[in-house]
Amino acid sequence: MRILGIDPGIATIGFGLVEAAGASIRMVTYGTITTPAGLPLSRRLYQISTDMEALIGKLRPDGISIEELFFNTNLTTGIAVAHGRGVILCAAEKCGVPLYEYTPGQVKLAVTGYGKAEKRQVMDMTRRLLHLQAVPRPDDAADALALALCHARSYTSRIPRAGNVKETI
Amino acid sequence: MRILGIDPGIATIGFGLVEAAGASIRMVTYGTITTPAGLPLSRRLYQISTDMEALIGKLRPDGISIEELFFNTNLTTGIAVAHGRGVILCAAEKCGVPLYEYTPGQVKLAVTGYGKAEKRQVMDMTRRLLHLQAVPRPDDAADALALALCHARSYTSRIPRAGNVKETI
Repeated sequence: MRILGIDPGIATIGFGLVEAAGASIRMVTYGTITTPAGLPLSRRLYQISTDMEALIGKLRPDGISIEELFFNTNLTTGIAVAHGRGVILCAAEKCGVPLYEYTPGQVKLAVTGYGKAEKRQVMDMTRRLLHLQAVPRPDDAADALALALCHARSYTSRIPRAGNVKETI
Repeated sequence: MRILGIDPGIATIGFGLVEAAGASIRMVTYGTITTPAGLPLSRRLYQISTDMEALIGKLRPDGISIEELFFNTNLTTGIAVAHGRGVILCAAEKCGVPLYEYTPGQVKLAVTGYGKAEKRQVMDMTRRLLHLQAVPRPDDAADALALALCHARSYTSRIPRAGNVKETI
């Protein structure tokens, strides 16, 4: 089962693909979709939409794991991220890929065993569980891999398929 | 100049088209795009996306006037509306239609001459300015017409073009 984790945003959208077969989970690829700050919001959203559709078409995930949105400190940023997340959900639906949503606490619990783990602990456990030499960069991509791991560890594996927009590796 | 006003949302998206030629502004059509509450958010967003693209293709506006998003009371509803608004902005960009954003205060000022007018005053002035027999229903469609009026009254008219997805009339 190929699971695409997505950390939603406007400026930087992290993604990370893992392949899960039973208890075995391996990292396939990760990276980011980015949009320039100078562009109008509508233009950035359209770019995210087309890049996300192209990415899903290329990576052919069996499921997409995406973070639930909470507004903590910055409401203005939160509104922009919600715009971007809307376009990402729409792209997943258009491509016919099932969506799974997880809270930050669920990701922490699934990856570290502790729902209130520090960000660094989550990143280090993501690295260890995927047998990576270093924590993936940038943070958006590492967060996306943690989301993919969360779903892989929360969900019964299904038949895996064969398969790979600015991938980091 | 054909101006499409849009009142963004998830359950009900209001739209209203006006044609402005100099000081003359006439209502062309208005209505709503609706999505069922029982559907998953991603499915509703995809439906909004396709309906909005079809609407823009049919109505061929020269510009789209859309409300800026403010979060007042209900944050959960606000997040959902921001998802929907993202998809609407994306559809407008895909269709190549220029976007214009107005705050509620700007709409009130442009339509009634008073930036803190009551909702009823805005609706009644919308009715009067567009020479309509009654205030358009539902409110979402009336709000959308007020947004279109706002842009028509705020902007220099350009060459009008000749020129309707679930229109009320």
